[in-house]
Amino acid sequence: MNEKPKIVTIGGGTGSFNILQGLKKLTPNITAIISMVDDGGSTGVLRDELGVLPPGDIRQALVALSQSTDLMRNLFNYRFTNGSFEGHSFGNVFISTMEKVTGNFGDAVHATSKVLNIRGQVVPVTLENTRLVLTFSDGHEVEGEHWIDDLPFPKGEKPEVSLHPDSAINPEASRAIIDADVVVIAPGTLHASLIPNLVVKGMREALEKTSAKIVYICNLVTNKGQTGDYKVSDFVKEIERYTGPIIDYVLYNTEQPSTQLLERYANAGEFGVEVDEEILKNAHYKAIGDDFVAEPDAPDSKGREFIRHDAPRIADWIQKIATGENIE
Amino acid sequence: MNEKPKIVTIGGGTGSFNILQGLKKLTPNITAIISMVDDGGSTGVLRDELGVLPPGDIRQALVALSQSTDLMRNLFNYRFTNGSFEGHSFGNVFISTMEKVTGNFGDAVHATSKVLNIRGQVVPVTLENTRLVLTFSDGHEVEGEHWIDDLPFPKGEKPEVSLHPDSAINPEASRAIIDADVVVIAPGTLHASLIPNLVVKGMREALEKTSAKIVYICNLVTNKGQTGDYKVSDFVKEIERYTGPIIDYVLYNTEQPSTQLLERYANAGEFGVEVDEEILKNAHYKAIGDDFVAEPDAPDSKGREFIRHDAPRIADWIQKIATGENIE
Repeated sequence: MNEKPKIVTIGGGTGSFNILQGLKKLTPNITAIISMVDDGGSTGVLRDELGVLPPGDIRQALVALSQSTDLMRNLFNYRFTNGSFEGHSFGNVFISTMEKVTGNFGDAVHATSKVLNIRGQVVPVTLENTRLVLTFSDGHEVEGEHWIDDLPFPKGEKPEVSLHPDSAINPEASRAIIDADVVVIAPGTLHASLIPNLVVKGMREALEKTSAKIVYICNLVTNKGQTGDYKVSDFVKEIERYTGPIIDYVLYNTEQPSTQLLERYANAGEFGVEVDEEILKNAHYKAIGDDFVAEPDAPDSKGREFIRHDAPRIADWIQKIATGENIE
Repeated sequence: MNEKPKIVTIGGGTGSFNILQGLKKLTPNITAIISMVDDGGSTGVLRDELGVLPPGDIRQALVALSQSTDLMRNLFNYRFTNGSFEGHSFGNVFISTMEKVTGNFGDAVHATSKVLNIRGQVVPVTLENTRLVLTFSDGHEVEGEHWIDDLPFPKGEKPEVSLHPDSAINPEASRAIIDADVVVIAPGTLHASLIPNLVVKGMREALEKTSAKIVYICNLVTNKGQTGDYKVSDFVKEIERYTGPIIDYVLYNTEQPSTQLLERYANAGEFGVEVDEEILKNAHYKAIGDDFVAEPDAPDSKGREFIRHDAPRIADWIQKIATGENIE
C-alpha cells in the first residue's frame, strides 16, 4: 500500500459531497462516481429543454473537489432568483452548455474539472440518458427521480430499483473501481441517490472484480416513508440485494446529535438510525461504530441546521482501512 | 520606445474585436476599452432581468484577447437556440452571473479575464449604468442603443451623442490612455459603438493629457441612413467634435473588396467609404492609405461573407507608428 491510497466514492446527493470534502485531504487519487438519474429542479429543466444529461449532482461533486478560489465555487453554486433563469444554478448551466459545445457529457465534465481545478476526478456512473424506476410488489411502477425522492412507500415495502432504459456503466467508472484501494459507498437517499449507481449494468461485475476494500458509510437518519424502520444492517442488506455480499466494512454512528436538531428532524418524520448490534456482530462485514456526527455548520439561508457526517473522522477511518492498520 | 509598445484601443462592436486580434500579436501590453451602452438582444434581457451592466461587447473583446483553447472560446460564444435561455450567449450569462456573485462589474471582468486567460486587459469605459441618447437638430431625442443602431437619420443630420445619465470614465480606462504609447480609435458603427466611448466624462481630458500617438482607423463601408454620405475626413470630423483635434494619424482604405461582396453590401445600402484626398492632404493629422481589406473569412452560418479590416496589416502600421519609423 502506498501512502496515498486510491479511493473511489459511489454516491450522489449532499451526504456524498460532504464525505468527499474530507477524503480529498487524504489523497489526490480520489474518484467520485456520481449518480445520473436526477431529473428535478434546474437539472430537470435543462434535461428537458436542452436534451442534456443531468448536471446537478456532478456540479456539486466538482465544487466539493475544487481547489479554486471561493469566487469560482460561489459562481458555480449561484442560483438565479428572478428572470428567465429563475431557479437555475449557474454551474448546471455551465456544464450543460459545455455538453452542447463538446457534444459529449464526459468531455464536458473533464473540461469543467479543469476550469474548477479539481483534486481527483468526477465520473458520471453512466453516460447514457436514463431514468430511475421503482417497481412495487404489486407490479406498480413509478418513473422519475423527482417523483421518487419523497414518495412514501407502502409499509414494509422494499421496491425494486431499476433504470429505464437499462444503462451501462461508464468505462471510466469501472476502471476506477477495479484499480482502487478503497471503494466508499457514500451515505445518501438510499433508493433515489445511492442504489441508482449500483443497478447500472457492469457495476456489480466491477465491485466483484476489484481487490479494493469496500466500505459502506451508513446514513445518520432514516428517510420518512422509505427507510423509516431501517436499522443499520437493513441499509446494508438493501444495498447487497443489488451487489451481492461485497461489503467489507460498515461505518455507523453511535452518538446522538443535539436534542434541538433531533427535534427538528423528528418533526419531519426523520430519526437517528438505530444500531442492531447483535446482527452487526455476526455479519460477514466488519461494523465499526464511532461518533460520526459533525458539529453543525452555520445555519443556512432559511435558518436551518443539518445533521451531517463528521467528514474528517470518516476520512481517518478510511485511512486506517486503506493502510490495513489493526482496527479490531 | 521599448519594443513592446503599450497600446490602447477604444471601441466596441465587430470592427474593434477584429483589430484586437491583430494587435494582440504585437504586444502583451494591450488594453481594450469597450463601450457600455449596448441594450439589445441577450445583453438587453440580462440588463433588464438581472439589473447588470451590459456584458455583450465585453465578452467579445475577452474572447478576441483570449489565449485559451478553442473550447473555452466556443463555450463563451455559444448561443442557446431553444428553451429558457434561447437567444442568450453563454459568455454573457457567465459575465452577468460573475457580476451578481462579485457584486461589481469591474471585478467580474477581471475574474472572467483570468478564466479566459486573456493577453492584455479589457476595460469597460464606464462602470455606471447608462443609456445612449441621440439628440437631433429639432430637439427630438432617441434613447437606447438598440433603437439607434439601425435608425435612419434625416438627410445631412449629425445628431449629438450623449449618455443618460451622464457617466464618468472608469479610472482604469483613464490611466491606460494616459500611460499608452499608441491609442487606437477602432472602426465600428460611429454613433452607436464608437462615439459612446468618447462622450464619457473624463475621456476628452485623458486623450488631451496622454502623450500617446492617437490613430483613427476609418471604417471601410458607410452605414445606411447614418454615415451614407461620409468621406474619410467626415468620420474624423465627427469624432473630433467630441474630443477636439487630437488625432495624429488616420488609416484609410484605398482598395475595393470583390465585386460580389460590394454588391451584397450595396443591396443593403452600404458602400465603400470614399477618400477625399485633397482634404486629407491638408489636414492636421497624417492620413495613411493602404489596402486594408482582408481576404474574406469563410462564410458564416447564413452563407454571408463580410468586408473586414486586414488586421495584420493594421497591426504593422500601428507598430511603425509606435516605433516612430519614418512613414512619410
